[in-house]
Amino acid sequence: MAAPVLDFWFDFASTYSYPAAMRIAPLAREAGVRVRFRPFLLGPIFKAQGWTTSPFNLYPAKGGNMWRDLERLCADLHLTFRRPDPFPQNSLLAARVALAGLDNGWGEDFCRAVFHAEFADGRRIDDAAAISDVLDGLQVDPRPALAAARSDEIKARLREETDAAQRLGLFGAPSFTCADGELFWGNDRLERALRWAKDGC
Amino acid sequence: MAAPVLDFWFDFASTYSYPAAMRIAPLAREAGVRVRFRPFLLGPIFKAQGWTTSPFNLYPAKGGNMWRDLERLCADLHLTFRRPDPFPQNSLLAARVALAGLDNGWGEDFCRAVFHAEFADGRRIDDAAAISDVLDGLQVDPRPALAAARSDEIKARLREETDAAQRLGLFGAPSFTCADGELFWGNDRLERALRWAKDGC
Repeated sequence: MAAPVLDFWFDFASTYSYPAAMRIAPLAREAGVRVRFRPFLLGPIFKAQGWTTSPFNLYPAKGGNMWRDLERLCADLHLTFRRPDPFPQNSLLAARVALAGLDNGWGEDFCRAVFHAEFADGRRIDDAAAISDVLDGLQVDPRPALAAARSDEIKARLREETDAAQRLGLFGAPSFTCADGELFWGNDRLERALRWAKDGC
Repeated sequence: MAAPVLDFWFDFASTYSYPAAMRIAPLAREAGVRVRFRPFLLGPIFKAQGWTTSPFNLYPAKGGNMWRDLERLCADLHLTFRRPDPFPQNSLLAARVALAGLDNGWGEDFCRAVFHAEFADGRRIDDAAAISDVLDGLQVDPRPALAAARSDEIKARLREETDAAQRLGLFGAPSFTCADGELFWGNDRLERALRWAKDGC
């Protein structure tokens, strides 16, 4: 029988997507669940809720606590953490490169490396030089990767993925969805989502 | 040495305060932490953020997922769950009675019983008759309890508690605070908050 599938939706700009991306592979392996990495853009989804930036910027008390909470969480997980500046980062380029990589076997490693560059090394991920460095680190030739990321096909695919996220009812990231439509929101729900997938959706 | 203290801030209208209130006592006992129940009103805090009702009503995608998530969570915890109608409930009376009860030894049982009436039995908690039934169930005479709840002293105390919550940076419920000012938000952070308190704040 094929392994059950869980879709992992994330935006590279999203803070709690960082620990989720770093935690998901070993947990999924343990649960016998196949995970599909699905980068998308939160921007259009936030805009539909009337937000022009991250709600963590719009609501300073909530935002302040999020940074402190993320710091504690990363310390507990032994993940280096550095607050991105500016926040949120523009994640368009990274998301497009990730889609190209997911077609070519280096996508998941690229995703983890981008999160590390952004949240551990403090790099700006909207910068093609930073993305090239990440690709170099993975022994992936940056030129064809960046060219693929800028192709009409990948651009359209990212738009379609973002539309699909919206149709599934996603309102934040990370989110996890099962084939039956069940939606789990937040890094805190990763274990529960894997259990749902494992139990056959 | 005195047991470390964790303050448990909640609003009776708050959905995730229900599982937190039902879980906290045994977990705190196990951790050797003394918990202080501190009912307050979210309304003025939401108003300061520009919200006139629960953000779960303002953002329907988020709200819809919250109800489903709470349903799953309560099932996992073997807690009966029924969606309150209307939502949010007006929690003013219940919070005042709770403050009176916390002075008199029956406060914590009252809090759990109110959450049960609201989220398991589907009662309206703004109704003096429902609150009287809850008190009856605890063998507490409703008349002096309701009279105390309507005293100027208790009314002022609830305003002070809500002001204190705002000064501590609370923006939602449940929240947990330590003597050192560390703030944890959400039922998902209960275990982490207890560990923080145990480790000496």
